[in-house]
Amino acid sequence: MQPIIKARFEQFSDGVFAIAITLLALELHAPAVVSHDAVRAVRDLVPFVPSIATFVISFVTIAIFWVNHHQLTAMLDTINRRRILWSNILFLLFLTLIPFVTQAASIDPLNPTRMVGYSLVLLGGSVSFSFTRYFIHKSLAEPRVPMRRSLFGPIMYLLAAFVALVSPIACYFLLAIPALYYFLPKSHTE
Amino acid sequence: MQPIIKARFEQFSDGVFAIAITLLALELHAPAVVSHDAVRAVRDLVPFVPSIATFVISFVTIAIFWVNHHQLTAMLDTINRRRILWSNILFLLFLTLIPFVTQAASIDPLNPTRMVGYSLVLLGGSVSFSFTRYFIHKSLAEPRVPMRRSLFGPIMYLLAAFVALVSPIACYFLLAIPALYYFLPKSHTE
Amino acid sequence: MQPIIKARFEQFSDGVFAIAITLLALELHAPAVVSHDAVRAVRDLVPFVPSIATFVISFVTIAIFWVNHHQLTAMLDTINRRRILWSNILFLLFLTLIPFVTQAASIDPLNPTRMVGYSLVLLGGSVSFSFTRYFIHKSLAEPRVPMRRSLFGPIMYLLAAFVALVSPIACYFLLAIPALYYFLPKSHTE
Amino acid sequence: MQPIIKARFEQFSDGVFAIAITLLALELHAPAVVSHDAVRAVRDLVPFVPSIATFVISFVTIAIFWVNHHQLTAMLDTINRRRILWSNILFLLFLTLIPFVTQAASIDPLNPTRMVGYSLVLLGGSVSFSFTRYFIHKSLAEPRVPMRRSLFGPIMYLLAAFVALVSPIACYFLLAIPALYYFLPKSHTE
Repeated sequence: MQPIIKARFEQFSDGVFAIAITLLALELHAPAVVSHDAVRAVRDLVPFVPSIATFVISFVTIAIFWVNHHQLTAMLDTINRRRILWSNILFLLFLTLIPFVTQAASIDPLNPTRMVGYSLVLLGGSVSFSFTRYFIHKSLAEPRVPMRRSLFGPIMYLLAAFVALVSPIACYFLLAIPALYYFLPKSHTE
Repeated sequence: MQPIIKARFEQFSDGVFAIAITLLALELHAPAVVSHDAVRAVRDLVPFVPSIATFVISFVTIAIFWVNHHQLTAMLDTINRRRILWSNILFLLFLTLIPFVTQAASIDPLNPTRMVGYSLVLLGGSVSFSFTRYFIHKSLAEPRVPMRRSLFGPIMYLLAAFVALVSPIACYFLLAIPALYYFLPKSHTE
Repeated sequence: MQPIIKARFEQFSDGVFAIAITLLALELHAPAVVSHDAVRAVRDLVPFVPSIATFVISFVTIAIFWVNHHQLTAMLDTINRRRILWSNILFLLFLTLIPFVTQAASIDPLNPTRMVGYSLVLLGGSVSFSFTRYFIHKSLAEPRVPMRRSLFGPIMYLLAAFVALVSPIACYFLLAIPALYYFLPKSHTE
Repeated sequence: MQPIIKARFEQFSDGVFAIAITLLALELHAPAVVSHDAVRAVRDLVPFVPSIATFVISFVTIAIFWVNHHQLTAMLDTINRRRILWSNILFLLFLTLIPFVTQAASIDPLNPTRMVGYSLVLLGGSVSFSFTRYFIHKSLAEPRVPMRRSLFGPIMYLLAAFVALVSPIACYFLLAIPALYYFLPKSHTE
């Protein structure tokens, strides 16, 4: 294949990252009526705690995907494999779905089905990201591709999708774990 | 005309690509009520299969336009012909209409008229893209411009617009063919 | 002032351009019900002609602003005057309002007040753009700043705002004239 | 940590800036019915003055954040500290919330609770920005970090959050002060 110039590949990906992360807030489900009384208004916010949790989990997850994406492409000079290009595009597909499932989950946060959908989109994102990572390492002819970091996210998100059926609240905690894991400096986790 | 610096031309185009592809998911028509029961929820998803098909077709189509757009501008140093600039801007116009017709089609997926509109926007996009491609090849004084690849998309989309009037479902299949055709490596198709 | 590196100035402006031009289509007022019968569907589209006209005028206007913006910043190495920076930011403010007034006009296209608002936003955009242009030419110590091109847009948009009060349809034609004027190659108009 | 290449860090941040500032206008609360009579239409606009004020304050605030962000990253070669990266990402989180709280405030502009929320988001943005600024200055081993400019914004926004409980109108004026302060050239304020 005709190689893709990295600058434009990153530019397009960064555009999608930036829009997806900004749309998260746009999709926040704001209370239609807000009490003028501040104490009551704070109490009225309680049902929105899961919405806010969903927003923060999605935001941090996208931010971490971005940091890792940056570190992946920094290893390359050009995108010269179709499988790298298309696994990245598949990853972008799941990325664009994150604002959608975040909103869907925040409308009715303790609905198990919605949390399954949310978990499955994050699962798709992390699996396609791991494939991109694997193909990039392979293309550099590295003898040993570090896969522990790549497997942790997919396993947790798959687990979260099953747990959501039993307890949507436990699902939230499971979804936050990969974000925390990847947030911590590499030296601590690998 | 004063030549346009390629970097900015690509930057602007990439912005439009990134936003259009991200808005596709935002426009997805989510079920308002989702059953808490997972089995029933899966059954409830059946009517959304055409919406999801529309989303995937539009996503892959935009991604392929992006890959091809990249390969076109990689051939240029500056944009020094008005016709290249403006056929590209016309292409961007159709590109920005894709999320709109994708949503319009997904609201009522078996409506022939909506599928005609969807096909016509993809037709407009692929025709204006082929013109951009033709003008770029011409500006490079190439003896022979390869037009087979450029004609395949427009012909299929035109056909799809007519087929939609008879069978919206057959139209979906026709719209997916150019995506597949351009997705396959060049050596297979040319 | 600490000079602004041009690349980032353009990157930020291009982002706003790309988003504003893509949102135009998102804001299109689609018919809620579309007849399955194609002939009737075409007839049903007639009331949407002004919406489509508004969309096309706004799209071409933003595209022309972008082409001219590119040519302006191509003259600079860095943004080293506060007045250039802030007249450009004021221009971006009006740019972001274009999708808003386009939608407002397309909801009720023959409403004189809405067309006045639409014209005034384009007026604000072209005046602030002309100021940016003037400050850039001045900063380059050019003996004579060509102002004919800079005055044409503002005058037409101001005229359009007044004409809208009498005839919204005539207003559409007036709004399309600057787009045409700037679209034609420079040699024809200056 | 593996250093982040500045170009991509800025590209991603600029994307979020550009989208957030463009969405402000999209979220403007337009009057549903606009009188055809221009005089009455102007009178009908009076209740929208606070909305317009909110839009302008948010727009100028984001623009100033952008100008200052540019000047911060201009001091760096690479982003080589986790704390710089993550305080910037926290800043982007508050940045993406600005269109949301701007809209929330503009729906019911004299609601004290909404103005508290608006002030708190600007507070969060300016605090996280000041931290980013502090970490960048520290990483450059500067003997003395100028903190006066960094403290002014947070203090005013905190004050505004309290004042909103008593007088939402006074809150508007307080929120406009940091914008004005940072808008003025540095030599005047420091």
